[in-house]
Amino acid sequence: MVCDVEVLTRAGVRTIHPYQPGKPIDELARELGLEPANIIKLASNENPLGPSPKVLTAIESAATELSRYPDGNGFVLKRALAEKYGIQQEQITLGNGSNDVLELIARAFAGPGDEVIFSEYAFVVYPHATKAVEATPVVVPAVNWGHDLTAMANAVTKKTKLIFVANPNNPTGTWFSKEALKAFLDKVPSQVIVVLDEAYIEYVDDPNFPNGLDYLSLYPNLVVTRTFSKAYGLAGLRVGYGLSSPAVANILNRLRQAFNVNSLALVAAAAALADHQYLVDSIAINQQGMAQLEAGFAELGLSYISSKGNFVAVEVGAQSQVIYQQLLAEGVIVRPVANYQMPNHLRVSIGLPEENQRLLTVLKQVIAV
Amino acid sequence: MVCDVEVLTRAGVRTIHPYQPGKPIDELARELGLEPANIIKLASNENPLGPSPKVLTAIESAATELSRYPDGNGFVLKRALAEKYGIQQEQITLGNGSNDVLELIARAFAGPGDEVIFSEYAFVVYPHATKAVEATPVVVPAVNWGHDLTAMANAVTKKTKLIFVANPNNPTGTWFSKEALKAFLDKVPSQVIVVLDEAYIEYVDDPNFPNGLDYLSLYPNLVVTRTFSKAYGLAGLRVGYGLSSPAVANILNRLRQAFNVNSLALVAAAAALADHQYLVDSIAINQQGMAQLEAGFAELGLSYISSKGNFVAVEVGAQSQVIYQQLLAEGVIVRPVANYQMPNHLRVSIGLPEENQRLLTVLKQVIAV
Repeated sequence: MVCDVEVLTRAGVRTIHPYQPGKPIDELARELGLEPANIIKLASNENPLGPSPKVLTAIESAATELSRYPDGNGFVLKRALAEKYGIQQEQITLGNGSNDVLELIARAFAGPGDEVIFSEYAFVVYPHATKAVEATPVVVPAVNWGHDLTAMANAVTKKTKLIFVANPNNPTGTWFSKEALKAFLDKVPSQVIVVLDEAYIEYVDDPNFPNGLDYLSLYPNLVVTRTFSKAYGLAGLRVGYGLSSPAVANILNRLRQAFNVNSLALVAAAAALADHQYLVDSIAINQQGMAQLEAGFAELGLSYISSKGNFVAVEVGAQSQVIYQQLLAEGVIVRPVANYQMPNHLRVSIGLPEENQRLLTVLKQVIAV
Repeated sequence: MVCDVEVLTRAGVRTIHPYQPGKPIDELARELGLEPANIIKLASNENPLGPSPKVLTAIESAATELSRYPDGNGFVLKRALAEKYGIQQEQITLGNGSNDVLELIARAFAGPGDEVIFSEYAFVVYPHATKAVEATPVVVPAVNWGHDLTAMANAVTKKTKLIFVANPNNPTGTWFSKEALKAFLDKVPSQVIVVLDEAYIEYVDDPNFPNGLDYLSLYPNLVVTRTFSKAYGLAGLRVGYGLSSPAVANILNRLRQAFNVNSLALVAAAAALADHQYLVDSIAINQQGMAQLEAGFAELGLSYISSKGNFVAVEVGAQSQVIYQQLLAEGVIVRPVANYQMPNHLRVSIGLPEENQRLLTVLKQVIAV
C-alpha cells in the first residue's frame, strides 16, 4: 500500500525544521563517554541554582494525586498570578511553557495568506508557529542586533495579523525602552495582535525598561507572555502564561488543550511564585555571572552583545562551529546560533561562578590553538 | 482603542466550546463546603489505585534537575516503548497526553475545506481538533452506541483527510473486532490517515479485540494513539504517544513543541511502563469494579452500555442532569454526557470497591425520590 506522507502533509508543516535544543548533558555523556558530573551546560538559559526547595516540597506532596487529571482551569496558580500582578484571572492563559501560548496565538489569529512580523535574530518559535499555520513570515532587519520597532510598525500591511516582539530578545539579549514600546503600540493598528514576549524580564533592572503589564489596559490587542522556565527555575516543568484582555484570553483558553499544564507543573509554579527569596537569589547570581563573563570575554579580546537576559552572545568568528565542538570535547556545552543567522557567535548562558570560570578557562585554551 | 477579538479570530476557532472536564474534587469541596476526603470522583476515567510507588520514587530523584529543560527527544522513554512493543523509536511521537498527539495529527494533515470523519458519541477532542483547523466534521451515526465502521468507510470522499476511530470507545465503552478493523482498513484509501485511539486498550481481555500495533506494517496511513493516563495511572502528568510509520512520526515530531512532554512526565512514564505488577493490579481492580457496578445497576433496574473500558454509561433517563446534581450534593462526582448527545446517561468511572458501593448506595437513594 503506497502512502506518500509528505504529499498528504499541509504545505506549511512541510517547511518546518525540528527545533534544535541545547545538547542535554546525558546525551553528551553518552556520546563522548564522559561522566555527567564532569559536564557543564551553559546552553539553554537555564537557572543555575536548580529548583527552589519549596518547589520540591510542593511536588512531593502533590505527587500522590497523579492518577487524577490536573485542574484544567489552573485555579490556584491563576489566583496567585492575578494577586501578584493585580489583574483579573480572566486575563490569564496558562501554557505548557510560553511556547504553548505563542503557538496558540498564531493558531487563533493567523492562517494561510496572513502575514506575521518578527525581527531578524528572533526566537525560533515565531517562524515555527507562523509556518505551522501557513502564514507568511515577514522578517524585519535588526539594528545593532536589536528590534527595529519603527521598521516593524512600518511593515504592517492589510494582511498583517500578528507581530512578535521580545524584550529582552533571545538570543541577542537586546532590549527596547518604554518610550520605544509606547510609540510602537500607538502606531500598530488595533486589529493586529502584538505579542510581547517577556521570558527574561525578571532579570532586568533598568528604569527605562517597560513592564508589559502597564500597557494591557490601553492596548486590547496586546498579549504579554512570561515563563517559569528562567528566573523561576522550572524549565523542566513547562509552565508559561499569557496576559491579555479577557477577550483574547477567552479565545486562547477555548483553543488550548484542556489539560495543557500538568498537575506537578501547576503546584510547582505556584510554589515558585511564592518564593521571593529564590527570585532575588536568581537575579543576584545572574548579575554577578554576567559581570564575570563580560570581564572574561574582554580579557580574551572577544566582543559580545550587551545583554539584559541570563545569557550573552559572544563573537568567536567564523570558526564558531569548530570552537563549539572543541568546548563539547572538554565537557562544556554552549549554544551555536548559526541557525539564527549569527554564524560568528556562540550563546553562553550564565552559570554558577565556577561554571562561568570553567567556560572562560576552556575557551581561552580553545581559541589559543 | 477598539479591537473586536472575535472578528480577528479564525473562523474555526470561534466555533470551539471549552472542554468540560470532570468536576475536580477541590472545586466541589469549595462550592459545597465539603471535606475533600468525603468526596469521591468517578468522573474522569482515572485509575483508582493512585500512582505506582515506583513512579513516586522516580519523580523524587528527577525533581532536583527541574531547572533543566526536558530531553526534547524523550530518549529514555522512547527506548523503553520501542523495546516493549518491538518497534523502532522512529515510529514514536510523544505527546502532552494523547490529546496532544490527536491535535498534532489534525494540524499536520487537515485544513480548511477538508473533511474529517468520526463517529457519533465520539471523544470530544476529535471535533475540537477538527474545528480548530477549520476542517469539516463528518459525523457518522452509531449503531448500538458503537462505531459503524462500514458506514464510516463509505463516508470517505475526495475531501477526506482523516478518520478518528476509538477502540474501546469513550464515552460508550463499545468496541469493534479484528475482522471489522481489517475490513475497514482495507477499504479506506491509503491517502486518508486513520487514527486508532486505544486509550483504554490495556483493560481489554478478549481474543477478538485487535491490537493496533499488529496493523502498522500493513497500513502506512495508520496512527495508533495510547496514553499513560488510564491503566498506567498518570492522568496528572500528561503523557501519551502515537505509533505509526516513521514517515508520519517524522511529520508529527517536526510539528510538535520541542518540549511538549515535561521532565517528570518522561521519567514517571518510563517508571510506570516498567512496573508490570501495577498494570496487572489496575486491570484486576477494574474487572472487579465493572462486575460490581453492572450487578448494582441491574439490581436498581438500570440499563447500561456494555463497556470494555474503565467506565460504564448507565441510563438514568431524562432527569440525568438533576440526578447528577443530587449525586454531587452527596459528594459523589460522576460525568454527565449530554454534550455527547447522550442526555439520558451518566458515565461512571470504575473506582475502588468501596467507592463503587457508595455510588450505588447514593444512586439508589436519589432515583428512589
